[in-house]
Amino acid sequence: MLPLNPDLAATFRPPVMEARRWLQGLAPNPDRPLINVSQAAPVDPPPEGLRRAIAEAALDRPEAHLYGPVLGNGELREAVAAEWNRAYGASLTAGNVAITQGCNQAFCAAIASVARAGDEVIIPVPWYFNHKMWLDMQGIGAVPLSCGQGMVPDPQAAAALITPRTRALVLVSPNNPSGAEYPAEVVRGFFDLARQHGLALILDETYRDFDSRDGAPHDLFADPDWGDTLIQLYSFSKAYRLTGHRVGALVAGVERQVEVEKVLDTLAICASQLGQIGALWGMGNLGDWLAGERAEILRRREAMTRAMAGLDGWRLKGCGAYFAWAEHPFTESSATLAPRLVREAGVLLLPGTMFMPEGDADGPRHVRIAFANVNGEGIAALADRLAALRP
Amino acid sequence: MLPLNPDLAATFRPPVMEARRWLQGLAPNPDRPLINVSQAAPVDPPPEGLRRAIAEAALDRPEAHLYGPVLGNGELREAVAAEWNRAYGASLTAGNVAITQGCNQAFCAAIASVARAGDEVIIPVPWYFNHKMWLDMQGIGAVPLSCGQGMVPDPQAAAALITPRTRALVLVSPNNPSGAEYPAEVVRGFFDLARQHGLALILDETYRDFDSRDGAPHDLFADPDWGDTLIQLYSFSKAYRLTGHRVGALVAGVERQVEVEKVLDTLAICASQLGQIGALWGMGNLGDWLAGERAEILRRREAMTRAMAGLDGWRLKGCGAYFAWAEHPFTESSATLAPRLVREAGVLLLPGTMFMPEGDADGPRHVRIAFANVNGEGIAALADRLAALRP
Repeated sequence: MLPLNPDLAATFRPPVMEARRWLQGLAPNPDRPLINVSQAAPVDPPPEGLRRAIAEAALDRPEAHLYGPVLGNGELREAVAAEWNRAYGASLTAGNVAITQGCNQAFCAAIASVARAGDEVIIPVPWYFNHKMWLDMQGIGAVPLSCGQGMVPDPQAAAALITPRTRALVLVSPNNPSGAEYPAEVVRGFFDLARQHGLALILDETYRDFDSRDGAPHDLFADPDWGDTLIQLYSFSKAYRLTGHRVGALVAGVERQVEVEKVLDTLAICASQLGQIGALWGMGNLGDWLAGERAEILRRREAMTRAMAGLDGWRLKGCGAYFAWAEHPFTESSATLAPRLVREAGVLLLPGTMFMPEGDADGPRHVRIAFANVNGEGIAALADRLAALRP
Repeated sequence: MLPLNPDLAATFRPPVMEARRWLQGLAPNPDRPLINVSQAAPVDPPPEGLRRAIAEAALDRPEAHLYGPVLGNGELREAVAAEWNRAYGASLTAGNVAITQGCNQAFCAAIASVARAGDEVIIPVPWYFNHKMWLDMQGIGAVPLSCGQGMVPDPQAAAALITPRTRALVLVSPNNPSGAEYPAEVVRGFFDLARQHGLALILDETYRDFDSRDGAPHDLFADPDWGDTLIQLYSFSKAYRLTGHRVGALVAGVERQVEVEKVLDTLAICASQLGQIGALWGMGNLGDWLAGERAEILRRREAMTRAMAGLDGWRLKGCGAYFAWAEHPFTESSATLAPRLVREAGVLLLPGTMFMPEGDADGPRHVRIAFANVNGEGIAALADRLAALRP
């Protein structure tokens, strides 16, 4: 008999790993190479300068192989504070910044800092599946907040879901999976709601570097008491192509960081030193390169929007950062459509059912297309294949 | 008002970070350089070949910067399985091995796989503090099992602590903090007890490479049904000096790894690729070097044992791997003795109170000396300083 935690046993399996299993046993088709729009991750390594910076540190800097401070290396924490002060008009210090082993872990630490088993957290649907998984395995109720068809959640609707057990509200902007960029006043509305009820607002800005808007996406850091309410999350993985190094950040009030330090000490001890060195090098040297990356993503977003507009029966509900969220025209569920797309169209995408509660009618009707790795030509080919798919 | 998780707020702060704070504001004394026996970690970088292997991968292998499989890279998982089969007479496959972001995370994942808030886990005292911290912040009861004065826990005594809420027994061998190497029959006794009651046995073998005994330290993997009961943990950090890369392993039955994959996907996505590459290189190339490292640690253990025997009033209770666990001769608590040792003797060690429940009489009477980084001369100097300390 295998003793298991029933909360974990009831948690769904990692969707990306499940989608990879659809490829098993499938012969490659040279006439129709796979178009993989399943994962929200760069497929190319970082620029050579960054790779060289990591290699040199590995050879020459002994501390690159040894434990560092639990909350991260001082230089990187200071660089994040300085860049955030510039970008958000904030007044952060290094003490407001924790470096984590990737942004998923930042979310886990943020939740651990505010909620325990039996509590509730409100998350907009469609959700980012690892958020839902963490809440499930922790025995914390994930209370779904519908985004409706406009893909932007409404603070008023969230207010109606608050109970005495609610501990936090979660937002992801730009959103994974919908691509929606939440307007500053909506983010502010959630912040005010959280403050009014003594809740935390966890704001995941993993995709902030690819936001189409110029200037700060919200003004929350300008609030002198932001640290009592806001926990902001960030990932270095997307901007600098460091997914394999696992470096993220959690920005919060200094008092909360005392609690976060306990979590990170126990889960991590510290984030990878070479990853931190790479992230710092990227922040100091890849500003222009990153601006070019963003411009390219925004061009692909335009191409995606045009391509979907020309597709009979498909409706684009959201498009931004790395993602399009689209309603498909078929009667079957996205849960069976997605593996069929692999077999019949050579397209790997994730079904809406992976991002929504069972029983939500929108899950079966939608798919997520992570288009960031596909250029204009590829997006046209993707649209052709979707158009040719039989019902 | 800062909303906080009360379980986390009640968790103690990271002991190693607290001990570092004792050094703040202390002027360095050139006549008496600090002897730091506080941390269980190498202070030198890995051998040059390993550093070069990491540097070359950073430059030339694109996949070293990108996401890998959640449970770890296939080659490393296979290498662990092969080495364990050799060392333990086991019949593992790569499917039994998960690679984690360090061994602390392996413990968190092991616990998450078997217990949830409100459950109980039995841990011998003195404990490894990060184990206790994870249980506390998860709302899982850490039930202390006294090791008495011999530092080896007794399965019979553990049996008396089992309740309907018990989910797992935890062992660390060689032990942190006591240095005790648990006899194979004791480990087997805990395994049988766990199986009899449908519990998991979590066996942390972080320090296995420095065990003084030749041959397998236990025979549990020879049991055809080991995977229903045993979860074994390992760290690459100590053997190959990779603390800053965060690479550990969790060995379990394939069914349990399905659950572990959910945890690691959510907490980690994957372990650092460069760390995994370094660990694999170390396993393939540093066998002889590691044997030399072990021999040196065993020499220091001998020196430590001799030095303590000559110290008036001190009693060595356990000594092995990186650690000595010693009773001091003073009336004051180790909690005040330890910071006083920094100021008055230039010695940084951790007080027994960090490893035991409040109120346990043994905590104030003992200290942990992590001697691995101190050579014979340093150990003699350490003994001199302890001998000279006024009451």
